[in-house]
Parts: sequence; C-alpha cells; structure tokens
Amino acid sequence: MLRRIGVVDTTFSRVNMGSIAEKELKDCGGGFRTIRRTVPGVKDLPVACKKLIEEDSCDIVMALGMPGKEAVDKVCAHEASQGIIQAQLMTNTHIVEVFVHMDEAVDERGLRSLAENRTREHARNTYLLLFKPDMLIKQAGTGQRQGFPDVGPVDEEERSSTVH
Amino acid sequence: MLRRIGVVDTTFSRVNMGSIAEKELKDCGGGFRTIRRTVPGVKDLPVACKKLIEEDSCDIVMALGMPGKEAVDKVCAHEASQGIIQAQLMTNTHIVEVFVHMDEAVDERGLRSLAENRTREHARNTYLLLFKPDMLIKQAGTGQRQGFPDVGPVDEEERSSTVH
Amino acid sequence: MLRRIGVVDTTFSRVNMGSIAEKELKDCGGGFRTIRRTVPGVKDLPVACKKLIEEDSCDIVMALGMPGKEAVDKVCAHEASQGIIQAQLMTNTHIVEVFVHMDEAVDERGLRSLAENRTREHARNTYLLLFKPDMLIKQAGTGQRQGFPDVGPVDEEERSSTVH
Amino acid sequence: MLRRIGVVDTTFSRVNMGSIAEKELKDCGGGFRTIRRTVPGVKDLPVACKKLIEEDSCDIVMALGMPGKEAVDKVCAHEASQGIIQAQLMTNTHIVEVFVHMDEAVDERGLRSLAENRTREHARNTYLLLFKPDMLIKQAGTGQRQGFPDVGPVDEEERSSTVH
Amino acid sequence: MLRRIGVVDTTFSRVNMGSIAEKELKDCGGGFRTIRRTVPGVKDLPVACKKLIEEDSCDIVMALGMPGKEAVDKVCAHEASQGIIQAQLMTNTHIVEVFVHMDEAVDERGLRSLAENRTREHARNTYLLLFKPDMLIKQAGTGQRQGFPDVGPVDEEERSSTVH
Repeated sequence: MLRRIGVVDTTFSRVNMGSIAEKELKDCGGGFRTIRRTVPGVKDLPVACKKLIEEDSCDIVMALGMPGKEAVDKVCAHEASQGIIQAQLMTNTHIVEVFVHMDEAVDERGLRSLAENRTREHARNTYLLLFKPDMLIKQAGTGQRQGFPDVGPVDEEERSSTVH
Repeated sequence: MLRRIGVVDTTFSRVNMGSIAEKELKDCGGGFRTIRRTVPGVKDLPVACKKLIEEDSCDIVMALGMPGKEAVDKVCAHEASQGIIQAQLMTNTHIVEVFVHMDEAVDERGLRSLAENRTREHARNTYLLLFKPDMLIKQAGTGQRQGFPDVGPVDEEERSSTVH
Repeated sequence: MLRRIGVVDTTFSRVNMGSIAEKELKDCGGGFRTIRRTVPGVKDLPVACKKLIEEDSCDIVMALGMPGKEAVDKVCAHEASQGIIQAQLMTNTHIVEVFVHMDEAVDERGLRSLAENRTREHARNTYLLLFKPDMLIKQAGTGQRQGFPDVGPVDEEERSSTVH
Repeated sequence: MLRRIGVVDTTFSRVNMGSIAEKELKDCGGGFRTIRRTVPGVKDLPVACKKLIEEDSCDIVMALGMPGKEAVDKVCAHEASQGIIQAQLMTNTHIVEVFVHMDEAVDERGLRSLAENRTREHARNTYLLLFKPDMLIKQAGTGQRQGFPDVGPVDEEERSSTVH
Repeated sequence: MLRRIGVVDTTFSRVNMGSIAEKELKDCGGGFRTIRRTVPGVKDLPVACKKLIEEDSCDIVMALGMPGKEAVDKVCAHEASQGIIQAQLMTNTHIVEVFVHMDEAVDERGLRSLAENRTREHARNTYLLLFKPDMLIKQAGTGQRQGFPDVGPVDEEERSSTVH
C-alpha cells in the first residue's frame, strides 16, 4: 500500500517551498504519494499538519515556512514550532519542520537558494525517516546542516589535524 | 447544511474587529452563518474559540485581538497565541488569529486602517480555508501580507530584474 | 439551579483580592454562589481553578494574583498564565485571570487601589460571561481597561476630532 | 486511611532539600506518610511527580530543586516549572514547587539557610493544602514569603501609617 | 524479562553521542537491551522518544543533542526540552535529556570531551533511574554535575571551612 507524505506551506513565504518539496520527494524514490496543503502563515501549520495525519492518513508531514525578520515574527515562529512538536506528540508521527528565517540570507538570491536547498535536504530526511531510518543512524553525530554546508564531526577533524 | 464560522473579539480592542469580520465574511459568499462572541481580552480568546467549535459546532473560527504596546501586553499576546494553537490541535479545526499590535501603527487613523484591512484579508483567508482550500495552494510562496501591501515572491522579482 | 463561581487567590498577594471579588460578585446580582480557595502563589492557581471546575462543579472561576517585581516573578506569572489558559482548554470553562503586577503602581496606596478596581471590574466581566454574554458584544472594540481608565474606541475619537 | 505526600528532589542541588522537607512534614502533624524520590535535575521533576501521583497514589507532592545561576539554568527552571504545572493539570493534584535559585543568596551560608527555610515553609503549605485548606484562606493577601521575611498586607501598613 | 532503554541522537550533532551512550550503558550492567534511533535535529527528538516508549516498549529513553551557538539554536533547544518534558508526562516514563551546547566548550577538543563525559554520566543516571533509584536518593543534594566536576554539597564545604 502507498504511504502518504503531507506537505504544507504558507502564502506568507516568498518562495514556493511546497512545490520544491514535492519535486524533491519524487526524486527520492517511490512507494508514496504526497498530499499538499497551503495555509496563510506558520501559526496555521500545526493544525494543518495534524489534520493531514489524522484526517488524510499521512505517515509523515513536512511543515514549510519562512518567518519574517521582526521580533514579532520570531515569536510567531517559536509558537509555531511549539505547536508542531505538540502535534507530533499527539499523533506519534514525525513532522519535519523546515523554517527559513528571512534574516538568514543577505539578499533575495541568497534567500531563494537557502530555501531551495534546505527544503530539498529536509525532503530527503523526510524520506529517510519514513523508509530508511537506519541510514540516519549512519549519519549520527556527523554535523549535518540543511541549506548550508555540513560542519562535519568533531572527531574526524581532530584526527586529520593530528595527522598533519 | 449551513457551515458555521465563529467570530470572537475583545472589549480591550479599540476597534470593533468582530463586526468588520462579520461584514467581510458576508461579502465572501454564502453557505455559512456566523456566530459572534466577545470576551474581555486576548487571553480569554482560546477557550472562547474552543467552546465555539465544540459547543456551537463551528467549522472554523476567527480570533480577533489588539494587544497593547507594553512588555506585559506582548507576553499576554504570546500566551494567547500559544493557547489558540493548542485549541486548534485539540479540535482539529483551524482558528485564524488576527492580532493587531497597538505599536504597529503610528497614529489612531493608521491603527484603525490596519485593523480593518488585516481583519478583512484574514476573513477572506478564513473563507478560503473552509470552502476553497485549493485557492490558497495557488498563493503558496507569494509573500502575502495581511493589512500591509504584499511583498510578493522572491523568484518573480528576480526574474523581472533579470529582464531589465 | 444555582450556578457556581469559583474564586481563588494567594497568600503571596499583599491585598485580599479574593474577598474583594466575592463582595463585588454579590453586588452584580443573584443566581449563583461563590466557592473560595486560597493557595500560596500564582503558580498554584491553575490546578486550583481546574479542581474548582471539575471537583466542585464551578461554571466559571476568577484567578487572582499579585506577581512581584523581579525577573523571576515575571517568569512565574507567565507560567501561571499559560497554565490558566491550559486549564480552560481542558475544561471548556472560562477562568478570568486578574493579575496585578507589583510594579504597576508607584506606592502602596496605588497598589491597593489598582488591585481593588481591577478585581471589581473583572468580577463584573465574570458575571457577564456567565449570565449576560451579549452585554460584552456591545462593548466589543471599546478599549475597556480594568483598574485603569478605559482608553475608548479609536473610531469615536476620530469622529469627534473630525467635527471640530 | 493514611494520606501520601510525595517528596522529590535532585542530585544537582547543593542542599539535601528532600530530607529537610521530610523532617518538617513530620513536625506538621500525622495522618500521612511520605514517599521519597531523587532525580538528576529539575527537568526530571515533572514526570517524577506525576508518577508519584498516578503510580504511588500520592495526594500531593513537593518538587524541590536548586537551579544554577547561568542563563541556561534559568531556561531549565522555566521548562521544569511549566512541566510541573502541566503535571498538576493532568492529575488534578497540587504539586508544591520549591525552587531556590543559586543567585538568590550571596554566599554558601545564605544559600543553605534560604534552602532550609523555604523548604520548611513550603512543607507547611503542603500540609495545609492537604489537611487544612481553610487555614490558607485566612492568610489570603497577607504577603507571605517563603525563605524570606513576609512583606505583609498593604492595607494594614496603610492603616498604621494613617494612625500616626 | 529484559528491560528496554531507548537511545536517540541527531545527525546535527558533531559527536556520535548515541554510540557513546550505548557503550556506557553496556558497562553499567545487564538486564536490558538498547534500541537506537537517529533523527535530524533536537526538535525531532520528542516524538522519537515517545515512539520508542509507546511503539517499541522502552522503559526509559536517553535524548541526546548538541544545539548550536546562535540565538535561533537556543530557541530550538528550548522547544525540544519542552517537548521532551511533555512526552514524559504523556507516557509516565523518564526521558533523560543530554544536551551539549556548542558554546559550552572553547575548542573542538573540549567539545568532544564534554559531550563524551556528559553522555557517560547521564547514561549512568539512566541506568540508576531504571534499576537502582535508591542510589540516587543517596546522592540527593550533593551538587552533581554531568560533564563538569561536581560542585559538591554546601553543608560539607561549610563544615570543612569551619574546621580551618
């Protein structure tokens, strides 16, 4: 039976993160179909994710948002994140949060690039969590970053610096 | 059968946001009736929304408030928002939060105008969430703002700047 | 059948807010009896309110407290408020929070006066929420304040300034 | 039948607050037995309290901790307090939180003294909440402090100053 | 019957904390087996822990993470901690949180050493909570620290300073 991956994004975001996620998921492999929703802002994401899980039988959900730069936006993002964690606990289902803060990039080109890369990398995490969780254990403690270059593990760097 | 849209606002607010919401909803189309409540302040909104959903069978609710400028008001707004998200998770029902912070506008004229516009735009979001959710998917990633001009998507601006 | 209004205050407060609330409620009208509790501090209020609702069948509760001036006191008040909102959501019952922060008044006379007035005004809100909720709709957006002078609605002030 | 009072403290604390609480409770009177637990830090307290209530049938619990001075310690204490309030709401049972922040005292002697006094005074509050709740109503609004001198009610001080 | 200890860590961490925990647990004694999971970041830990408890019958879980230095990372860690406490309350099961903040150490060597030591010491706490809870009562109020030297109890230091 096909598994279901929910994808929810916002009209507030300046990049269509939902479509990027759907495309990347398709590239990860088969065995699932995606169900797409869009809500106004990040604070609408928690219940949208929970409905996808409980009313649309999704096995995992991606929650995509682009919080603004202002203090009030940071508070909104925090509230949304708390709600997304709560929704997971109420459903025993992973919801992979993909938030790109508008002040993480210097210009629009950087913002778009960051949103694309982070969404893609988390789409792969979503796929692994659902279908190949043991692949994540192999990445444990390796300093993975989504949207930015990985920083790598501490031990390997130590080892190489010892070699020199 | 008629759907039900709950509308709750506060006596603390300096603009009758509930009446603005009711009028705008009526202009969006038919197929529903509104149920109105007013509570003292934003911290009373979460349970009022939940009661509208569970005791008055509302299918969606608008939670309208105008938090003050002081630090303590910001904390109240934060607590109210957390409660509104929680109420949604407990009921699997969208509650569209419409908060206008008193320090978002320079003078009273601006405050009234902002409260009117944000309430109206979110009334339309509420209508779409209930009756035409696919219309929101079409707006995904388009930088919508409620009460202020939309900022638009990053990609389109990039494209036009490339054309010049 | 008589309705029940719970009244909980604290030993930490420097004003007997519970007694003020009980007296003011009595002046609002009949049809109910009050059930009084006192707990050590504001963080003990949430469960005390919930017990009044679930074990003593209260239809609504007033939660009265006087948080201190220090940073740690502000955090306590925040945690208490979150708990009070949660208690409401778990019971579908209004709990009217009446907090007077010790730094809201300049001296002891002002603190006592503020505590009395805010408690009285919220006692009337409590009565209206239980018996005459439509009276609150008439006050929607009128800039009500409890313990301080009302600031009034934005629109009326605008209108009068246009007349001159 | 004997009532049960749970007592939980931490290995992180620099004072054996659990033993102080057990001794003071014994001095308050009879009719109960105490059940003792110790966990690593304050964030382990909420579930330990809830297990004492639901698995060991405690009627009330004391949660004792000594958060450190650093910013991260303050956040830990805040999270622990939120969890303790949540545990109370889930069980309709009082949990008396006794936290002594390491920066509340100037030296070790003061820290030990504060921890002892606050623990003892809250042990008495715990006893009153369980066996004599009406005694707390008599202390309503009297400015009680645990571990420091009581500040007293506002009204009495006003009255005496009027007399002069 | 063998007890089960869940171990969850992250790919974000720069040290394989999960493997360190598994090894140290094995050194603590027998009577249990470990079940390992790895998730992308600390915000994915709460639901992973809850699933280990409810779907994999774990009796206790270690939640291991290494939050970054930035303000946004501190918020993530806070949200994760709140979720971990909530997961414990929903399952009446201890989850021992082991977070190493990247700014707790000056260099990479220190970071690795801190992560190793804190993980090991909390693995022993986990073992004690599950198999020998009375051993923790003996450590009550002794100023235990995980990953750094213990600070010890206040009373003993006082005593020794009195002797001089």
